[in-house]
Amino acid sequence: MHAVPPLEGSAVGSAPEVPEAPEALERDLRRVDIHPDFWYPLAWSREVKRGKAHGVRFAGEPIVLVRTESGAVFALEDRCAHRQVPLHGGVVDGESIRCCYHGWTYDCTGRCIDVPYLGRERLPNGVRSYPCREVEGLIFVFPGNAALAETVALPVMNAASDPKYKTRRFGREVACHYSFMHENLMDMNHQFLHRKQMGQMRARSLGRRRGEGWVEVDYTFARMEGQQPVGEAIIFGQSRQGASGNDKDVMTIRTEYPYQTLRIVNSSKTVVMDLWIVYVPLDAEQRTNRTFGLLSIRRPGVGVLLDIAWPLLVWFTERIFKEDRWIVEREQEAHDRQGADWNHEVFPVINELRSLLRESGAAERAAAPTGPYHRRIPIEVVTQTQHEAGARPVLRTAAAATEVLQGSDE
Amino acid sequence: MHAVPPLEGSAVGSAPEVPEAPEALERDLRRVDIHPDFWYPLAWSREVKRGKAHGVRFAGEPIVLVRTESGAVFALEDRCAHRQVPLHGGVVDGESIRCCYHGWTYDCTGRCIDVPYLGRERLPNGVRSYPCREVEGLIFVFPGNAALAETVALPVMNAASDPKYKTRRFGREVACHYSFMHENLMDMNHQFLHRKQMGQMRARSLGRRRGEGWVEVDYTFARMEGQQPVGEAIIFGQSRQGASGNDKDVMTIRTEYPYQTLRIVNSSKTVVMDLWIVYVPLDAEQRTNRTFGLLSIRRPGVGVLLDIAWPLLVWFTERIFKEDRWIVEREQEAHDRQGADWNHEVFPVINELRSLLRESGAAERAAAPTGPYHRRIPIEVVTQTQHEAGARPVLRTAAAATEVLQGSDE
Amino acid sequence: MHAVPPLEGSAVGSAPEVPEAPEALERDLRRVDIHPDFWYPLAWSREVKRGKAHGVRFAGEPIVLVRTESGAVFALEDRCAHRQVPLHGGVVDGESIRCCYHGWTYDCTGRCIDVPYLGRERLPNGVRSYPCREVEGLIFVFPGNAALAETVALPVMNAASDPKYKTRRFGREVACHYSFMHENLMDMNHQFLHRKQMGQMRARSLGRRRGEGWVEVDYTFARMEGQQPVGEAIIFGQSRQGASGNDKDVMTIRTEYPYQTLRIVNSSKTVVMDLWIVYVPLDAEQRTNRTFGLLSIRRPGVGVLLDIAWPLLVWFTERIFKEDRWIVEREQEAHDRQGADWNHEVFPVINELRSLLRESGAAERAAAPTGPYHRRIPIEVVTQTQHEAGARPVLRTAAAATEVLQGSDE
Repeated sequence: MHAVPPLEGSAVGSAPEVPEAPEALERDLRRVDIHPDFWYPLAWSREVKRGKAHGVRFAGEPIVLVRTESGAVFALEDRCAHRQVPLHGGVVDGESIRCCYHGWTYDCTGRCIDVPYLGRERLPNGVRSYPCREVEGLIFVFPGNAALAETVALPVMNAASDPKYKTRRFGREVACHYSFMHENLMDMNHQFLHRKQMGQMRARSLGRRRGEGWVEVDYTFARMEGQQPVGEAIIFGQSRQGASGNDKDVMTIRTEYPYQTLRIVNSSKTVVMDLWIVYVPLDAEQRTNRTFGLLSIRRPGVGVLLDIAWPLLVWFTERIFKEDRWIVEREQEAHDRQGADWNHEVFPVINELRSLLRESGAAERAAAPTGPYHRRIPIEVVTQTQHEAGARPVLRTAAAATEVLQGSDE
Repeated sequence: MHAVPPLEGSAVGSAPEVPEAPEALERDLRRVDIHPDFWYPLAWSREVKRGKAHGVRFAGEPIVLVRTESGAVFALEDRCAHRQVPLHGGVVDGESIRCCYHGWTYDCTGRCIDVPYLGRERLPNGVRSYPCREVEGLIFVFPGNAALAETVALPVMNAASDPKYKTRRFGREVACHYSFMHENLMDMNHQFLHRKQMGQMRARSLGRRRGEGWVEVDYTFARMEGQQPVGEAIIFGQSRQGASGNDKDVMTIRTEYPYQTLRIVNSSKTVVMDLWIVYVPLDAEQRTNRTFGLLSIRRPGVGVLLDIAWPLLVWFTERIFKEDRWIVEREQEAHDRQGADWNHEVFPVINELRSLLRESGAAERAAAPTGPYHRRIPIEVVTQTQHEAGARPVLRTAAAATEVLQGSDE
Repeated sequence: MHAVPPLEGSAVGSAPEVPEAPEALERDLRRVDIHPDFWYPLAWSREVKRGKAHGVRFAGEPIVLVRTESGAVFALEDRCAHRQVPLHGGVVDGESIRCCYHGWTYDCTGRCIDVPYLGRERLPNGVRSYPCREVEGLIFVFPGNAALAETVALPVMNAASDPKYKTRRFGREVACHYSFMHENLMDMNHQFLHRKQMGQMRARSLGRRRGEGWVEVDYTFARMEGQQPVGEAIIFGQSRQGASGNDKDVMTIRTEYPYQTLRIVNSSKTVVMDLWIVYVPLDAEQRTNRTFGLLSIRRPGVGVLLDIAWPLLVWFTERIFKEDRWIVEREQEAHDRQGADWNHEVFPVINELRSLLRESGAAERAAAPTGPYHRRIPIEVVTQTQHEAGARPVLRTAAAATEVLQGSDE
């Protein structure tokens, strides 16, 4: 029952107290900042009310989101050019924001358009503005080089806008580096952590694929013991317990930098669950993140059943997420105490993911990315996969990402 | 309506993200320690009860205030010479203080006069004592060079001892450098912050003056919209709303290092309000301070009316101070995050004040002031003032500080 | 009334603000780490339930104590070799512990015996294990060089296993270096601190002795004023107030590195009270410790009386310990602020103790003790003692430690 291919040059068996040799030469992943030249959600639309300002943070940068009286949203650095106090304490005045302290006023471009006690001919410069878009109930900001914003696509959240699905929006702060979140979700062997919620399940990895800026892996699952949990039953509309075909569902987890998705496709090749999630660093050290997730469940034939069962699903997923949050915060604590990444990873999928996150991240912090964003060199390939039931090298492309496989997890 | 004179060499228009060039060459004001060779109140008299000890701090130095059985107050460093534990946990014994741990005993000069298990001929040295005075319900300590204490005057608090006034004593801890407090009070353009309490008022600066160790500025005020607040009415005894003469009151704000005063003189040249206030650093980094203020309001003809209205005044001033505290703590937070003073000050009065605070402060922290206090070179002048209604250079002296002008603020 | 002998080269009379000259050349005792090559209790037996894991710390090292299904206890470093998360969140599985995250499994030697998704032939190395013993309701761990564990004796706790005594087990976290705890207990002049609980007592030191790895001192006590407290009466079974023989009891306090004992022997040469206590550092800086104490009181003729009075004794000792905790935490605070040990110790017993703790402690932190533990050079002697009633040099040995003297303290 070993779904994992032989380890390429693995250090399994080496002393556990020193990091892997190859890792030691690489950057510590937990110190790799997220790349700023992407669109990141910084708030839910409902958090930014008409005529109000709302303060958020991206990797330590304070940013104010302003919804003007016309309902438009803009994003500025959250400090008055005058005395550096947060603009989110200010007053929305038509289409502009007025600092609460001495009344300096800024428009949506960050230009200072009024200082009540100063002539207009002598107005000071203003503050930085950020490209800002509102999609699917999320307010996205482009915190990096604004000149690139138009060239970088907003993420696609398929199911969330499809009436055949019901979507739960959730999010919370988690006290860890975003990379722990990606690794947590992608390594389905971790569902031992959720044994109380899910029973004893065993994941089987079917294969992994990698392309430019992304990596993905497929799993099926087999129940070892215990009952099918209610939350799982909601997702699939019926108990699959005892059925010989309980390993026909396939879960595909994909990190397409900087976002992550988890999709479950059933034996009818229907996407029954589609999770889109991103982990936005809050502090400058990027040791905390705010998670924004959209969890879409396909409505069954009688759609109202899903609505009735929804509170159970919420309860079930909250339990799962609580366990995940607990463990990744323990990982961050260990890193803080050990001062380095001592992880002894033996699962090739995760080592692939780590490599992707390291290569896709920002340059070293000392040299902050001020110039244009240098596109990363595409990784043409794709990797070898072996698994128990017929291990053989496979070459796959992104287009083949949602094959029909089998399995289930949170 | 620009009450501010043209800016002398102002950097208005420069990039907001870098500090002003002249500032960059000067010491960061937020790192200038307050000068210790002055009298600072460290507690209210009522906080130090007869036969009790009370622990306070000045810029990180722990100090114990002891009120002996005879009622006298003395001040020592708040640590036993033996095992460094705070003396404020000890027992007042006649005119001395006995450490709570092993009973070492100190008199008002800090001399150790008893160790219960040691012969008197072998008593160890004691602890440092501080010059200490009790005035107007405040216990003042001279934390600097004690040899200078006799040569430095205690502050004058005129109205607090005058029966024609009723005085409110207030104080609180504020998590910011003392300089933010001085700047907050002196820049009356900040009353936009108090728009909910005060309505829309506009300050007009009439002129500023500077001498050795002090700077002051006069304002009048015009109500732009809204009702006269109750607190303001209490101070002036009647509504001035709608009266053509509602700009005849003059507010003068003065920093006479290290104290600050705010006086309002009405059209009859009577001081209707007199605030004395000081901001005493608590921690070694001087990022917190404890404020001690005496707010004196002139009693109206029927004195009892003021007593009846007093709770309203307390409520009003508490609201104002709460807003001020919030904003200066945000200023300190910005400084902590930015690591430097990015303020982009455009108001000459405040730049004058900053210059005064910088010059009057202690020497760089590395070289602690151990020798005698070198008197600062007097700044003979006085500055130029221009305002809309007849800008012309004026030369003023401290004696002319309370001219009849108009206006009101907190 | 000076029980203390003349100070050998004492700096009494020197300026209190600088450390003693000899101290300045020595290591700062408050930065001397406890020596790891001893047995330290890390938990009470009752805290580690059958089939459960329990996380503890020794000087910053996370350690997991596991009680297997058979009831045996073992100790491992509290981090999974895989992703460094704490094993104490895991699942006890027979005689092994399974990490909660991905199910990696370790036996009592720390060897990894299962990774559910990996072949047994490719199992990674495991984690560090610690020698572990369970004695008298305490779980002892040997955190240093495991090769030495067999050569180092577990501490002897005489009275706790003797039915003639009733024993109270107590413990708490205290935010100070362990050395402050030793000094607090050994310097009985500190009972001025407990004047509210104990009345005015005066300690008289009869003499001190020192040998290899230990130092001890004898005291008698005289009541100066006030009532005998109830807690004290419980210990002695009757009021000794007013009796001419109220100075016949002798208290002996001994630090036998790293443990401490306090015994009271009455005029019939019976040990009426026997305290065994140790202070285990929790954090890497060793600025906090967890105290484990066994307080044994000899049962009176009618044994049930002690049981009836027990709640009073608990209350009494809790009050005493609360005062002690408060003061030693103030000592640590002073050290943190002053950055060095400014203590001005005049009591030779304590200077002897400090010397013992300094010599017995671990090597400098930079050079962690990795090699075998070098036995400390024995200090043959023994010291001079003088006291009021017939001061004369005495030579004593450890065998003479429990002489019949008089007195009482916590």
